[in-house]
Amino acid sequence: MEDKMESKLQELTIEEKVGLLSGADFWTTKEVKRVNLPSFMMTDGPNGLRKQVTSSDHLGMNESLPATCFPMACALACSWDRELLYEIGKALSEECIAADVDILLGPGVNLKRSPLGGRNFEYFSEDPYLTSQLAAKYIKGVQENGTGTSLKHFAANNQETRRMVSDSLADERTLRELYLACFESVVKEAEPWTVMCSYNKLNGTYTSEHDWLLNQVLKKEWQYDGAVVSDWGAVNEKVKSVQAGLDLEMPGNQGESDRILLEAVKNGEISEDKIDEAVTRILRLSDYILEARAQKNVPVSAEINWENHHKLARESAGESMVLLKNENKVLPLASGEKIAVLGELASDIRYQGTGSCKVHPYHVDSPFEEIRVYEPSAVFAKGYLLDGGDDGLLLEEAEAVVNGCDKVIIFAGYPERAENEGEDKVDMKLPYNQTELIHRIARTHPAVIVVLCNGSPVEMPFSNEAEAILETYLAGEAAGGAAADILFGKKNPSGKLSESFPVKLEDNPSYLNFPGMQNKTRYGEGIFVGYRYYDKKNIEPLYPFGHGLSYTEFTYSNLSVSAGKENTADVTLEVQNTGDRYGAEVVQIYVQKKGTEIIRAVQELKGFEKVRLEAGEKKQITIHLPKEAFRYYDAENGSWQVEPGEYEILAGASSRDIRLKGSIVLEGDELPPYKCDQNSTIAEISRSPEGKAVLEKWMKWCSDKGYPIFTEEPEFIQNAYETTPLRWVKMLSGGCFTEEMIEDVLSHCNR
Amino acid sequence: MEDKMESKLQELTIEEKVGLLSGADFWTTKEVKRVNLPSFMMTDGPNGLRKQVTSSDHLGMNESLPATCFPMACALACSWDRELLYEIGKALSEECIAADVDILLGPGVNLKRSPLGGRNFEYFSEDPYLTSQLAAKYIKGVQENGTGTSLKHFAANNQETRRMVSDSLADERTLRELYLACFESVVKEAEPWTVMCSYNKLNGTYTSEHDWLLNQVLKKEWQYDGAVVSDWGAVNEKVKSVQAGLDLEMPGNQGESDRILLEAVKNGEISEDKIDEAVTRILRLSDYILEARAQKNVPVSAEINWENHHKLARESAGESMVLLKNENKVLPLASGEKIAVLGELASDIRYQGTGSCKVHPYHVDSPFEEIRVYEPSAVFAKGYLLDGGDDGLLLEEAEAVVNGCDKVIIFAGYPERAENEGEDKVDMKLPYNQTELIHRIARTHPAVIVVLCNGSPVEMPFSNEAEAILETYLAGEAAGGAAADILFGKKNPSGKLSESFPVKLEDNPSYLNFPGMQNKTRYGEGIFVGYRYYDKKNIEPLYPFGHGLSYTEFTYSNLSVSAGKENTADVTLEVQNTGDRYGAEVVQIYVQKKGTEIIRAVQELKGFEKVRLEAGEKKQITIHLPKEAFRYYDAENGSWQVEPGEYEILAGASSRDIRLKGSIVLEGDELPPYKCDQNSTIAEISRSPEGKAVLEKWMKWCSDKGYPIFTEEPEFIQNAYETTPLRWVKMLSGGCFTEEMIEDVLSHCNR
Repeated sequence: MEDKMESKLQELTIEEKVGLLSGADFWTTKEVKRVNLPSFMMTDGPNGLRKQVTSSDHLGMNESLPATCFPMACALACSWDRELLYEIGKALSEECIAADVDILLGPGVNLKRSPLGGRNFEYFSEDPYLTSQLAAKYIKGVQENGTGTSLKHFAANNQETRRMVSDSLADERTLRELYLACFESVVKEAEPWTVMCSYNKLNGTYTSEHDWLLNQVLKKEWQYDGAVVSDWGAVNEKVKSVQAGLDLEMPGNQGESDRILLEAVKNGEISEDKIDEAVTRILRLSDYILEARAQKNVPVSAEINWENHHKLARESAGESMVLLKNENKVLPLASGEKIAVLGELASDIRYQGTGSCKVHPYHVDSPFEEIRVYEPSAVFAKGYLLDGGDDGLLLEEAEAVVNGCDKVIIFAGYPERAENEGEDKVDMKLPYNQTELIHRIARTHPAVIVVLCNGSPVEMPFSNEAEAILETYLAGEAAGGAAADILFGKKNPSGKLSESFPVKLEDNPSYLNFPGMQNKTRYGEGIFVGYRYYDKKNIEPLYPFGHGLSYTEFTYSNLSVSAGKENTADVTLEVQNTGDRYGAEVVQIYVQKKGTEIIRAVQELKGFEKVRLEAGEKKQITIHLPKEAFRYYDAENGSWQVEPGEYEILAGASSRDIRLKGSIVLEGDELPPYKCDQNSTIAEISRSPEGKAVLEKWMKWCSDKGYPIFTEEPEFIQNAYETTPLRWVKMLSGGCFTEEMIEDVLSHCNR
Repeated sequence: MEDKMESKLQELTIEEKVGLLSGADFWTTKEVKRVNLPSFMMTDGPNGLRKQVTSSDHLGMNESLPATCFPMACALACSWDRELLYEIGKALSEECIAADVDILLGPGVNLKRSPLGGRNFEYFSEDPYLTSQLAAKYIKGVQENGTGTSLKHFAANNQETRRMVSDSLADERTLRELYLACFESVVKEAEPWTVMCSYNKLNGTYTSEHDWLLNQVLKKEWQYDGAVVSDWGAVNEKVKSVQAGLDLEMPGNQGESDRILLEAVKNGEISEDKIDEAVTRILRLSDYILEARAQKNVPVSAEINWENHHKLARESAGESMVLLKNENKVLPLASGEKIAVLGELASDIRYQGTGSCKVHPYHVDSPFEEIRVYEPSAVFAKGYLLDGGDDGLLLEEAEAVVNGCDKVIIFAGYPERAENEGEDKVDMKLPYNQTELIHRIARTHPAVIVVLCNGSPVEMPFSNEAEAILETYLAGEAAGGAAADILFGKKNPSGKLSESFPVKLEDNPSYLNFPGMQNKTRYGEGIFVGYRYYDKKNIEPLYPFGHGLSYTEFTYSNLSVSAGKENTADVTLEVQNTGDRYGAEVVQIYVQKKGTEIIRAVQELKGFEKVRLEAGEKKQITIHLPKEAFRYYDAENGSWQVEPGEYEILAGASSRDIRLKGSIVLEGDELPPYKCDQNSTIAEISRSPEGKAVLEKWMKWCSDKGYPIFTEEPEFIQNAYETTPLRWVKMLSGGCFTEEMIEDVLSHCNR
C-alpha cells in the first residue's frame, strides 16, 4: 500500500498537494478524480450523527438528519462497559454509512479537570485509564464497521472560556500522566483514522502548530500514522501548522490557505518534503475510506433498524445510570405503590448537551410516560419551571399531588442553556427552584427519590433529605425509559461514577486556577486531578470516583497477585452476587506505591472489569496489570519509570470502598545514567559505587590530616549528610578537600 | 561620600579588590589597612547574639558568649507590635556593640509556605505585609543604634529539605506578591546594610548567581545600595555570582575564590567594572561600619544591663503569646485556686530553635517556678518524657497530682530535635505521649489549660477537650515568666496569630508539593498561601490568621473610608475596651477587590494597629492604605496594577472575625498599551475605540454583502462574541471578511 501511495504522490501536482491539506467546504475534502482520490465527508458528533440536511454551509450548524441519540460520554463512561462502547460504535457506524458519512468526529477524550468544564458532557472521566479504555472500544466499534473516527481534542483542552485563545500551562509530567495519557493508549490500541487538534494553546503554542505535541509525541513517539485534522477553525498560521504536523485544515477557506502554502513552498519557507509527509497521510486516509466504501454491506438509510438502535440506546442508558444513594431500600419501586412524579424534567427530560454534538433524535422517551407504563396510577406535577423563577403555585400543587403517595420521584437537573459548548459553568448549583422543591417535599414526605439529569457534578444540599438519588447524566434519547427501568427494578443499576462528586465547588483541585486569567490557565494542581486530589488531600467527596449502588450485594474474596515478566502482574479474585437478583458489579483495581520519594497519587485506577452475576453466582476474574500500570513519568530524565519496590494492589467497589488488598514487589526500571557535578549530593554521588568510594577515600584523607568532615559539626549539619552537595564537602573541610579531589570524584562518577 | 569611595577604589590594587569580595575567615572580612578599610565581624542570629567564644573556626558552631535570648520571630510576629520590634533591635545592637560585632545576621523574612518548614521559627508570617512591617522596625532598631543587619534569606528559601540543591519553581506574580514582597518594602523602608542570598535555586538558578533577582530586582528596581552577602557556603560558581550581583562571599575559602576571580579578570571573563561595582558596595558598607564604630556610646560588655534585657525579653514574650481559646473564663487563674502543672516542658520549657540561631542564653525562666511565684501551692508532675516513649507511671502520677485541683495546666510542645535548621518536619503532630496525657487528664478533669511551646502550627486533637489553649511559640529565655504572667492575668494577652493553624496538615496549600522531589519544588498553589488559600477554598482553619483572645472585650465602631490621591485611602474607626481591665487589641485591615476577572485572594492584610486601652477607654485610629495596598502584579504586562473599581475595606479582630466594613472606589491604573494581532479577541480589539469602530464597519459590510457574522450562528457561537479572536471573525464570514480587513483593524488598534 505504501508503494501505491508513493506512486500516487508522484502523480500529484504541487497545487493538488497543497489543496489536499485543507477542506473543500465545511464538511468535505477535495477530490482529485484523475488519481482516484475521493472527497470524503466528516460530521459531528460522538453520541449520534449530526449530518446537516442542506449542503455544507459556512456555519455548519443547520438542521440535521434524524439519528439515534445515544447516551453522552459523561453517561456512557459510568457503564465501565467496554463491550457496550463497541456496540454503540458499531451502531453509529451503521448510521454513518447509511448517511454517506466517512468519518464521525469523535470521541472526545479530554480529561475532566473541573466540574465547570462546558463540554464535560462530551468527555468520559477524570481518570485517563478509564477514558482511554472506553474510547478505544468505541473507536474499534466505529472503525471495524466501516467508518473513520477523529480522536479529539488534542490536547489539554479542558475549558470553554476563551477557548480560541486560552493557553493551558501544564508541566510535562502532568501532561504525560493525565492529559496526554487519555490519548496515548487509544492511539496505540485503536488507531483512530484521524486525531483532531484542539483550539487552545498548550504552554504558549497553539496545538494546531505544536511541533512537540503533533510531530514529536503523537507521530514519532506514539508512532501514529493517521492524519491530524484541525478542529474547525483551529488553524492559526497555515505554514506553521503544516510544519508542526497538522495535516488537514478544516473547514476549507476558499483556497486561501492553499495559496499561502503554495507561496511558502515556492519561496522555500517550507520544504516540499514536509508537504509530502502530510499528503501521504491524507492519501493513506483516502485509502482507508475507499476500502471501507468498497466493503460496505449494511443497508441504506431507510433500512436502518431504528427500533433496535433505540433499544440499544435504552440498554446503554440503563447500564450507565448511577444509583448514588438508596436508603431503606426505597428503590426499586414495588408494584401497587402510589407514586408521585414531580418536575418539568420528568415530562421533558434533558438527555443531551448543546453545541456541535447536538443530535436530531429519532425518538425521545418521556420519563413520566415510561413510568406510567409500569405503574399507570402514577401522578404528576410540574413542581418548578425549568427556565427558573419562583412559582409558589407549582410548589403548592406539588405538595397536594404527593399527599397520600407512598413515594415521590423528583426529576431535577440543568436546563439546556446551563450546559453548553463554548461556555463554562460558573457554579455547581442546581436551579434554586428545584432544590427548593426537593427541600419542601422532603420536609413532609419520608420517601423522596431524586433523579438527576446533568452533564457534570452538582452540589446536593438535599443529599441527606433524599432517600434515594439516581444520577442519569445526559443519557440519550431513551433516558426516560431507562430511568423507569431502574426505578421499577426492571433493570438492576450497575453504573459507577467516572468522576468524583465534591461536596462543594471549592473542593475541586482546579478551583484556584479555573478558568484562568489573561488567556492563561495554570494547571497548578499538577497530577492531582479528581480522586487523585481528594485522596491525597484527605477531602471527603460527596460521592467518590467509582461509586455506584446495586439492588443486590457483591462480596469479594480470595485476592492474589502474581508477578509476570518485566514489571507486570496479574490480579485474581472472586466476586459473588450474594443478593437475591441478577446484577453486575464493576470491580476496580487501584495501584498504590508503598514508600516512595516521588510525588505520586495515593492510588490510581489501573484495571477494571464489569462482572455479570446471577443471584448466588460466583466468578473468578483475572485482571492483567501491564508495566504501564506502575510507571510514572520522570520529567527530569525524560522517561517513563517503574520504581523498584512494593506496590499495593487494591480491589474495590469504588475508590473509597476497597474490599481486598494484595501486594507485589517489582524490580523496577533502572534509572537513566546520572551525570554528577559539584552540586550533586552525597546520595547522588553514591549512585556510582566508584564515585562513592573515591569520595569516602578523600574524606578520610582530610580527616586523617586533621580536617574531619561530618563528624564534629553540630547535629543539624550532620543530619543533612545525604543531601549535602560535593562543593559543600569542600567547604566543610576548611580547604583541605580540594578542587582536584572534586574532579577526581566526578571523573569516577561519570565514567 | 561617593567621592571618597571613588578615590579609595582608585587606590586599591586588583588583588586587594578581588580579596574584598570574600571573607577572611568564617566570621570576618579582610582589611586593607593602607586605605583604612577595616575588617568587620558578622555573627548569627536574629533573636540574640551568637558570637563564638573561640576565634573563627571553620565550622562556625563553637560555644558562644552568653546573650539575651529574645523571643524567636515566630513568636514576636504575633505581637503585631512595630515598636516592640524596634526596642528588641535596639537591645540586640547594644549586645552586638559590647561584643564588637558589626553586623547581626538577621532578620529572616522568608514566607511560611508550609507548617513543616524547618526554619519557620526564624520567620515571621505567612503574610508578606505583616512580615515586612515588623522586620523593617527590627532593622531600624538594630541599625539606628550602631549595628548592621543582614536581611535574609533572599529568596524563595522556604524549606530545609535538600536545602543546598533544591530549586524553588514559582511564577513571577507569586514571587512578586508574596516571596519577594517580604523583602521589598523592608529594603525600601529600612535599608538593611546587607541582604543575604539563600542556599536554594530559584527557577533553575542559584540565588547566589541570579542576575534577575540580585541585579535586576533588588539593586535596580528596588534601588538597593547595600551589599549582597552570600549565606555561608551559598556561592556555587564565583565568577557567575559576582556577575549576578553577589558582592561578598562568606565564609572565606583560603583565597581560592580570590584566585579564581583574579584569573577571570585577567582573561576577560569578567570586567574590572563589575568587580568595582561590588567593591564599591563593600566600601560603602565599610564606611557605615567605621561611622558606627566612631559613634559608639553604649557601655562595654560588662556594663550591659542584663536584667533590663531579660525584662524586655519577658515583656516581649508576653506581648507575643496568643490565647487561642478560653472557655468559661477558665483563665486568668484566680488567687487561691489549687493549681496542678503538668509536663516536662513546664520545668524545662522550649524557648528557642536549633541551628545557627541558637543562643547561649543569659538566664532561662522555668515556667513552674514562675507559676510558684504567683501561687506557691501549685503542684507539679512530669506527665510525659519529652524524649518520647510511653510511661504509664508518669500518667498515673499526673492523674494523682491533679486530683482535687481546681485547674490543670499542661505544657506541651516539641522536643528540641523535632524542629531544626537543615531538616523539615514531616507532620504537625505533637508527640503521642503528650496528646495522650491531655486526653487522659481532660477525660476526668473539667478545667484543663494547655500551654504550647512549638515553632510552627500543630494539629490539636485536644482542641475540644481543653478549656483554654495558650500558644507561646518559642518565646525566648523569659518564656516561662511571661507564660505565668498571662496565666495569672498579670499580663492581659494581646498576641494574634501571624499564621493560620489548619485542622490537619493536608489542608495546607503546599501539601501536594512540599518538599518537592528530584531537587525541584513546584509552588503549585501560586499566590494562595496561608489564609489566602483557606479563604479562597472555603476551608475552616482550626484557628485563623490574626486570631487571638484577650481577657477583656473590644468593640469596633464608626468605620469610614476616605479616598486619597493616586489610589490611596484612609480608614478611620473607633475601638473601645468594653471589658473590665486594661488590654491591647490588634485592629486588622483587609482589602478585598469587588468584581474582578483577575485571580485574587478573597482578602489581603494591608494595615494593622495595636491599640492599648484602659477599661472603658475608646480611641479613634486612622490607618493609611497606600497605593500598594490595592495592587496586584500583572505578569503579562510586567507591571504592578491597581484595578479600577470598588474595593471593600474590612476591619477585623482576625481574618475571620470581621467587625466592620466600608468600601471605596478607585480610579485605578491605566493598563499598559495592548498590541493586537489576529488572535486578539473582540473584547481586546475593543480596548481601542478606533479598532472597534473599524472592526464593526467591516462586519457590517460583510453582513450587507450577505455574509452575516454573529447573527445567524447558533447561540453557543454568539455567546462567545467577546472572546472570539479576529481570525475567527474571518472564518465565520465564510471568506467575506478578508485578510486585508484584519490588517486594517490591527493598524487602527496598534496606532
